[in-house]
Amino acid sequence: MSTTLINTIEIIKAGTTKINDVDFDNLHFGEVFTDHLFECDFKNGEWQKPIIKPYAPFLLDPSAKVFHYGQAIFEGMKAYKDDNNDIWLFRPDENYLRFNNSAIRMAMPEVPEDVFMEGLNQLLKLDSEWIKKGKGNSMYIRPFMIATGAGVIANPSEEYKFMIILSPAKSYYSGEVKVLIAEHFSRAANGGIGAAKAAGNYAAQFYPTTLANKAGFQQIIWTDDATHTKLEEAGTMNVFFRINDTLYTAPTSERILDGITRKSLIDMAKRENIEVEVRPVLVSELVEAAKNGNLKEIFGAGTAAVVNPIIGFSYKEEYFELPKIENSIASQLKEKLTNIQHKLAEDTFGWTVKV
Amino acid sequence: MSTTLINTIEIIKAGTTKINDVDFDNLHFGEVFTDHLFECDFKNGEWQKPIIKPYAPFLLDPSAKVFHYGQAIFEGMKAYKDDNNDIWLFRPDENYLRFNNSAIRMAMPEVPEDVFMEGLNQLLKLDSEWIKKGKGNSMYIRPFMIATGAGVIANPSEEYKFMIILSPAKSYYSGEVKVLIAEHFSRAANGGIGAAKAAGNYAAQFYPTTLANKAGFQQIIWTDDATHTKLEEAGTMNVFFRINDTLYTAPTSERILDGITRKSLIDMAKRENIEVEVRPVLVSELVEAAKNGNLKEIFGAGTAAVVNPIIGFSYKEEYFELPKIENSIASQLKEKLTNIQHKLAEDTFGWTVKV
Ligand SMILES: Cc1ncc(COP(=O)(O)O)c(C=O)c1O
Ligand SMILES: Cc1ncc(COP(=O)(O)O)c(C=O)c1O
Repeated sequence: MSTTLINTIEIIKAGTTKINDVDFDNLHFGEVFTDHLFECDFKNGEWQKPIIKPYAPFLLDPSAKVFHYGQAIFEGMKAYKDDNNDIWLFRPDENYLRFNNSAIRMAMPEVPEDVFMEGLNQLLKLDSEWIKKGKGNSMYIRPFMIATGAGVIANPSEEYKFMIILSPAKSYYSGEVKVLIAEHFSRAANGGIGAAKAAGNYAAQFYPTTLANKAGFQQIIWTDDATHTKLEEAGTMNVFFRINDTLYTAPTSERILDGITRKSLIDMAKRENIEVEVRPVLVSELVEAAKNGNLKEIFGAGTAAVVNPIIGFSYKEEYFELPKIENSIASQLKEKLTNIQHKLAEDTFGWTVKV
Repeated sequence: MSTTLINTIEIIKAGTTKINDVDFDNLHFGEVFTDHLFECDFKNGEWQKPIIKPYAPFLLDPSAKVFHYGQAIFEGMKAYKDDNNDIWLFRPDENYLRFNNSAIRMAMPEVPEDVFMEGLNQLLKLDSEWIKKGKGNSMYIRPFMIATGAGVIANPSEEYKFMIILSPAKSYYSGEVKVLIAEHFSRAANGGIGAAKAAGNYAAQFYPTTLANKAGFQQIIWTDDATHTKLEEAGTMNVFFRINDTLYTAPTSERILDGITRKSLIDMAKRENIEVEVRPVLVSELVEAAKNGNLKEIFGAGTAAVVNPIIGFSYKEEYFELPKIENSIASQLKEKLTNIQHKLAEDTFGWTVKV
C-alpha cells in the first residue's frame, strides 16, 4: 500500500475564486471551504490516479455503502502560515498513521503515504492564499474516505473515495464550557471502534449531547460503558484533570481516540516538570477532589480548539464549579503549543513540518 | 411530525425500463434496483414535497455530514406478490416505528407516517412488474435517511434526505453457516446505539467479520461487550438457541436490535406450544448444552434470510458441531412464516397488509 507511485497529480484549476466572498474575521468552524479539493479513488483493488480539482458536489449511487453501513473515516489537522509566508503542518505523520489505523479497523484500504502527503501538500500550495498569517488563524484540513461501492449487502465495499478538503479557521472563544459526566449513554464499546476516527462514532453522540445542551452543558465527558466509573474523553477532545499540581488523563485504549494534542501536551508538560499521570481516572476521585478543593482545572485537548478550559461539571444532578485560577496550566500549555504551531517559538520537539 | 399532508406525490416516470436486463433467477442480494425511487427531503425544519423519480445517482457536497459523522439510518423489509397479483407487506407498521426510533437516537427528524407509507405503496405499485410471484421471490425494500447538510462541525445536520429504494430478491441457500462466538470484539456498547438501525453499527462489524471469514466462519454471534459472557445477536439477525425442546433468545436491550422476524417467531412458537424463554443466554450454558448433547439447534432470524440454520459454533478455539435433525423447529417455523408472508396460509396474526 505504500508503494503506489504518483508521477503527477493532475490539477484542474477553478475558473474563479470564492475567496473574495469570505469574511475571514467571522469564520464559523467548518462552514467555508477553499476553491479546490484533492481526490483519489480506489477500485479494482488499487488506488487510481489522484486529482486536484474545483471543490464541488459529486454523484453517488443511492445504494452506496457509506449511506447504509457508515463505512467512513476521517482526520482533522491544521496548517499555519508564518511571517515568511511559509506553510507548516503539525505532526502530519501522526494523522497519516492514525488515518490508516482507522482504515484497518473499518475494513477499508490503507491510503498510500505519497497520495496522502503529496495530495495534501499540493492542495495547500494551490490554495495558499486562503491560509492567513497571524496567531489564531489556521487552515483546518479534513482528509476523509468513504465507501462508494453500490449494493445493500452488509459487507465491505470494493470501491472507495479518499478526499481532502480545506476550511479556513479562526481560533474561537468557545464560551464557558460546562460538562456533564455520562451516567447512562456511552461513546464506545470494549472491542468496538472508539479508537478509530470512524464516522459512526460521532453521530452516536449527537442525541445524548443534545440532551446535555438542553440541560445547559456544552459537552459530555464520556465514561467507560460497562461501569460508568472511569473518565474517558469528550466528543472531539481528550480530557485532562489537574488535582493539586498533578495532571491526570486516561490511558488510550480501544475505547479512546489517541489524540495528537493529548500526546503533545503530555510531552510538553513533562518537559516543564509538571507531574503527569496517565492512568484510569475515576469519577469518584474527581468528585472527591472537587469537594475538598484539590481539583484545580479540567481541560479538553484537540486539534480544533487546541486546549479548551472547562469551568465546571455535573454528576448525578450535582454541579461542581471549578475555582478561577491565574496562570492556569491549561493556558500555559496552550500558549506554548500554539507558539510552536505558528512558528513563534523554537520547535525543540521537531513537530512542525514545512509544506 | 405525523401531520404532514401530502396531497400528491409527484411522479416522474423513467423513459425506459431496465427490467429486461435482469436475470430474475440469478439475483444476488441487494445488487439490482428497480426503475424508480422515492425521495423526500427535510430542510428549513420541515419535510418537503415528496417525489417518485427514476433511480439514479445524486449529488452531495463533500462536507455532507453523512460522510463525516455517519448520521444515517435504514430499514429492511419485504413485499410479496400473491397468485392474484396483489402485493403484500409484512408488518410494515413495525418497520415504520423502528425507523423513527432509530431517527430519535441519531438526532434525526422523524419521518411522517404518510410520507413513509404512501411513498412506499406508490413506489411498489409503479414498479410492481419487478415483484415476481411464487415462494422464494420477494421485493427487498430499503428505506433510509442520510444527513445531507454541509459543514464539518460535529453536530446534527439541519438537512436530510429520506429515500426508499427497491431490490428484487430471491430466497437464497446461504450454505452451511458456522459461527464464531465473539470473545474480544463487540457490536454495541451499553448506552450506545446497538438498538438503532444506524449505519455505523454495520461498518463496525466488517473487520471482525472479515477475520472470522478467514478462519472459516460466515458470521459472528456477538456477546455483551462488558463481559463477553452473554449471547446477543448476529450481524443482521437475532439468534435462537434450542436446548432440548425449549427455544432461548436474548431479551431486547439498548445493545440489541428489536427484530421483527424474532418477535414474529416468538409469537408463532408460543402458538405452536413450543416453550420459548426470553432471557439472557450465557455462552457457558451453550457450551455445556453442546457438550452434553442437549443443544439441538441454533438459528438466526431476520428479514433478509427469514430463518437461517447454523450448523456449528466455535468458542475459545473449540468447535462444536450441531446434530443433524429431521423436522427442525427452524424449518417448521420458516415454512409457517414464509407461507403467511406469501399468502399461502391464513394470516391469523393479522401481520400482512395489502398494498
Ligand atoms: C473523539 C476524539 N477525541 C479526541 C480528539 C483529539 O484528537 P487530536 O488531538 O488528534 O485532534 C478527537 C479529534 O479531534 C476526537 O475526535
Ligand atoms: C443487527 C440486526 N439484528 C437483527 C435483525 C433482524 O431484524 P428483522 O427481523 O426486523 O429484519 C437485523 C435486521 O435485518 C439487524 O440489522
